[in-house]
Amino acid sequence: MAQADSLQDKANQFAADVFEHIRQMSADTIGVSRQGYSDLETQVQKYLMDIARQLDMTISRDPAGNVWMRLAGSDPTLPALVSGSHSDSVYQAGNYDGMAGVVAALTVAWWMRQINFVPRRDYVVLIIRNEESSYFGKAYAGSLGLMGQLTPADLALKHRFLTVTLGEAIRSQGVDPEPLTKGRPLVDLSRIAAFIELHIEQGPMLDGSDTRVGIVTGIRGNFRHKSIKCLGQTAHSGAVEKAWRHDAVMAFAELAHTMEAHWQAWLDKGEDLVFTIGVVNTAPNASIAAIPGLVSFSVDIRSLKQDTLDRFYALLRTEADAIAQQRGVQFEFDRRIPCEPAEVSSALNARMEAMARRYGLRCRPIPSGAGHDAAVLGNAGVPVAMIFVANQHGSHNAEEAMKIEDFIQGTDLLWRTVQNFEEAI
Amino acid sequence: MAQADSLQDKANQFAADVFEHIRQMSADTIGVSRQGYSDLETQVQKYLMDIARQLDMTISRDPAGNVWMRLAGSDPTLPALVSGSHSDSVYQAGNYDGMAGVVAALTVAWWMRQINFVPRRDYVVLIIRNEESSYFGKAYAGSLGLMGQLTPADLALKHRFLTVTLGEAIRSQGVDPEPLTKGRPLVDLSRIAAFIELHIEQGPMLDGSDTRVGIVTGIRGNFRHKSIKCLGQTAHSGAVEKAWRHDAVMAFAELAHTMEAHWQAWLDKGEDLVFTIGVVNTAPNASIAAIPGLVSFSVDIRSLKQDTLDRFYALLRTEADAIAQQRGVQFEFDRRIPCEPAEVSSALNARMEAMARRYGLRCRPIPSGAGHDAAVLGNAGVPVAMIFVANQHGSHNAEEAMKIEDFIQGTDLLWRTVQNFEEAI
Repeated sequence: MAQADSLQDKANQFAADVFEHIRQMSADTIGVSRQGYSDLETQVQKYLMDIARQLDMTISRDPAGNVWMRLAGSDPTLPALVSGSHSDSVYQAGNYDGMAGVVAALTVAWWMRQINFVPRRDYVVLIIRNEESSYFGKAYAGSLGLMGQLTPADLALKHRFLTVTLGEAIRSQGVDPEPLTKGRPLVDLSRIAAFIELHIEQGPMLDGSDTRVGIVTGIRGNFRHKSIKCLGQTAHSGAVEKAWRHDAVMAFAELAHTMEAHWQAWLDKGEDLVFTIGVVNTAPNASIAAIPGLVSFSVDIRSLKQDTLDRFYALLRTEADAIAQQRGVQFEFDRRIPCEPAEVSSALNARMEAMARRYGLRCRPIPSGAGHDAAVLGNAGVPVAMIFVANQHGSHNAEEAMKIEDFIQGTDLLWRTVQNFEEAI
Repeated sequence: MAQADSLQDKANQFAADVFEHIRQMSADTIGVSRQGYSDLETQVQKYLMDIARQLDMTISRDPAGNVWMRLAGSDPTLPALVSGSHSDSVYQAGNYDGMAGVVAALTVAWWMRQINFVPRRDYVVLIIRNEESSYFGKAYAGSLGLMGQLTPADLALKHRFLTVTLGEAIRSQGVDPEPLTKGRPLVDLSRIAAFIELHIEQGPMLDGSDTRVGIVTGIRGNFRHKSIKCLGQTAHSGAVEKAWRHDAVMAFAELAHTMEAHWQAWLDKGEDLVFTIGVVNTAPNASIAAIPGLVSFSVDIRSLKQDTLDRFYALLRTEADAIAQQRGVQFEFDRRIPCEPAEVSSALNARMEAMARRYGLRCRPIPSGAGHDAAVLGNAGVPVAMIFVANQHGSHNAEEAMKIEDFIQGTDLLWRTVQNFEEAI
């Protein structure tokens, strides 16, 4: 994407204009809020469809309401190369989580038209609904629905602010929710050669370095507990000596600190692992002068490898048991929520690395800690890859930011991969 | 108190009847609730005054509304021997915290009348108001008021459920709150030879042993923080690697676990020390999938020795600084609330120990972790001592319990000390 300076400038301007238009359509008081399966999400999709029509792309919706915008290749018998991301955002979000991948894919299509490049196979910009689903709590609803993997319980989930359910929201956008729970894909996946999703990193690693683009090595899965309880014994803080105590907070602190040390040791051994306790709370009646008898806390363990997840989770249970035994407390684990890691296509990654070398595009390998629609497609058997772009201030907050020059670098890697897709690597 | 079996039985019955009557007067839905400086507290004091009048005791109120019930000795020129405790309770409390010491002192007076014992110096049963003050948050209001050590800010404290202030509650019981803030004692403390307070232990140590009575070795002071904040950086739990994190919960866990290890080491060296983190909470918007950027927690450090308090507190700050430095987090300490330890009279303790040996009363030394009115009188220069009685289920809860036979053992030690008070030990 660096042919003529003026054309490069026009590409930058194209992307910046699309981002700004969508930001204005989606503005709330502090950032943007764009619920999945809402009128606003549909309007933003229609705005993008208008641009695609001007690029002479053909447009369709799949049974889950996702939008497929197709730039015809010279050989329509070949499976398509698909790129895109999600069109929803969390409540009071930034403008780039999801939308960066949609705009990147669309910018590549725009570029192909500018330079009159006709790909061999169809190139599709895919706009996926309701990935965050932070209003309903069921992530990847658009891609899971397309795979027929939603459940009636998912459809019954209530909106966090309103009385509407996910199923009702889906229906409100002209989509029949019924087939989304059928347990089988609603499109022919063999017609997708690959799915490449560009996304902001949502973390500080690329932004803290000179390398602004990452090639994702895998998408972490996780084990989660929303609320593990540690039960000790409440007592007067002044009147009970150390040896007699069953202090839930001290037991929690030992478990957290011990697992953090294990985590570091596993990282030192080269395992991919993340361990987070995001929420900790003593009981509402806890007081400064009482030994705490109850503390509840969340746990989030993530890894690229299911085996690592299994073993670190087992270690958590072992350490909790040992601490419980030693301190006379109990750990009560609530339902464990699993999410499988997703592998990316090593062939696609090798292809992207080769393109980066050939065109002098700096990039580095990076794991994806967050889940993405690409994981859903990957676990369904589609070859997937992801490109990360440096961004500022994380994501899922209104301060989330991204530099357009970094975005263009990532989009350039996507373009070169599309451009040379038929070439043997 | 073991002269004739029938008289002993009558003493047991006397105490049990007084406890039961007061329990009925003070009953709430699950235990007893007796606010200090309330009509109920005054009514209970009047019930006890009626008994004292039948024992031919003379009754007066001091300027703080505390009740002095005097059994005249043979030499009215000598300073009086005083025993008693507080007449208020926390909300939804048990029946014995405070009241055990009042009933013990009164039972000794009853006993003296039964056996026609006339002490050399006056013996006074002191009923102190509003020690818990859990409705207003300023502990020891009755005894501190008597020392003139309340402040206008204390008097302005609001009731936890109602709009009334502590000062208005005091006035409602016919007491002028104004002099209670004068900074000097409102009675002649040189007229008090000693103050001995019997109290339930509020902890499990005596109840877990065969020795049902304790002689208190000192009353712990404390340093408290209601809410220390640990400030880190909130970020996506999947997208930020360990080395980049500023995780407030992990920093807190390290501090808690480190200080617990120091605590054990100090106990092993023989220091008197208690360390409690009763309250821990992440921010309201904390979530399972976010690295926590904020956790707030309380700290309560107690010791019999001010020097130990000072050094352990300094260690807490040093460790917090080191952890903050290493992890890139900040600890923000709110106002430190100090409460000085109080020494008990070693001469009084030696006297009680001698009595225990002489009369074959089993007792053991025990520190008082909680504060008591005795500490206020002791810090004002009155020789003080405390007797602890085994109790069940701690205190400050409706399940708090005490066995009458244990109570009688503790009261027996008080009686022997009163009986032989003029004797040189």
